[in-house]
Amino acid sequence: MASYSIPAGYKFHPSDEDVVRFYLRPKATGQPLPYPDIVFEFDLYGEKEPSEIWDMFGGPSLDETEDLFFFTKLKPLSRSRVNRSVGIGGTWSNESSKTIFARGTRIPIAMKRNFRYENPGSLQDGAWIMREYSLPMKTQPDVGSSSSSSYVVCRLSKNDRPKPKVVGEVPAKKEEMKSLINLHKRKIDQER
Amino acid sequence: MASYSIPAGYKFHPSDEDVVRFYLRPKATGQPLPYPDIVFEFDLYGEKEPSEIWDMFGGPSLDETEDLFFFTKLKPLSRSRVNRSVGIGGTWSNESSKTIFARGTRIPIAMKRNFRYENPGSLQDGAWIMREYSLPMKTQPDVGSSSSSSYVVCRLSKNDRPKPKVVGEVPAKKEEMKSLINLHKRKIDQER
Repeated sequence: MASYSIPAGYKFHPSDEDVVRFYLRPKATGQPLPYPDIVFEFDLYGEKEPSEIWDMFGGPSLDETEDLFFFTKLKPLSRSRVNRSVGIGGTWSNESSKTIFARGTRIPIAMKRNFRYENPGSLQDGAWIMREYSLPMKTQPDVGSSSSSSYVVCRLSKNDRPKPKVVGEVPAKKEEMKSLINLHKRKIDQER
Repeated sequence: MASYSIPAGYKFHPSDEDVVRFYLRPKATGQPLPYPDIVFEFDLYGEKEPSEIWDMFGGPSLDETEDLFFFTKLKPLSRSRVNRSVGIGGTWSNESSKTIFARGTRIPIAMKRNFRYENPGSLQDGAWIMREYSLPMKTQPDVGSSSSSSYVVCRLSKNDRPKPKVVGEVPAKKEEMKSLINLHKRKIDQER
């Protein structure tokens, strides 16, 4: 690994292609990374809430435009379903997806899925955004195993535009809210 | 000067305070800079149009989120007026200004002025944004001279939100446009 020192004013602001080319692909294929300790290895789809992960990895000291990056492993439930529930009652809800192409080509190099944190009834509901970069399936023959090829890169950031709170509706809709929470506890992300 | 090498994914995205603390203040006081060749020395208030400057300094190869940074010297016309005309018929028009404070304090460390490129009748009208960082006047006793204390940092970027073109009005308002252009040629930015 090369020895680096980051000059003042430089921040980790990788383009989508940078993430795939310099971090995700080397990690998935067991190659050395260009820089250590900037993409942390941590289970984003585990017991910790996004706010806890944000605090654990220095989020509060970042500039407004900076995000946190993680290598994490997907937790497939089947060949097309992945478990993206988080902590207690939370889940990452898919908002949109797009294919990342190598610059200036139509060669797909990764999928980028955009998620929004949902946890109805929690103050954190809607407060977090996560972008997940994964290699195309054909380069992931072993997605169900624990091999390094099942790694994805997750980019965690605060949501600057949380959905507006509906004031005064909570008591009237308590029952509805309860059933929504129950629904969420069972909900499993089915988009892959 | 320390020896640096920038790892993949890192971009020059300085915060306002980074610009002032690590680049503007050292430059104005003759101290060494943390990194060479990232803030270019060039006359932003001279003969070159923003589009020419953008091309000269590698703007087209930057990521969408990257800007170009320059050290330039103000051209005072008097103690309170600065000439910010550009090229032929262009000018930087002040849109807003704010004071930059040292992080977590109310200690002013610089002024940040936001400009928009205006050149009525040109395709470049409204297409560029420039943010100018200057040290507070008290640390600039010599602003009228050619000393290094009259340096400012200019941050040049493309305007993603150009003002909407009014279609069909040009022929009817040709005379008005002409007089606007003449007005602009005489216009001198008077906000300092």
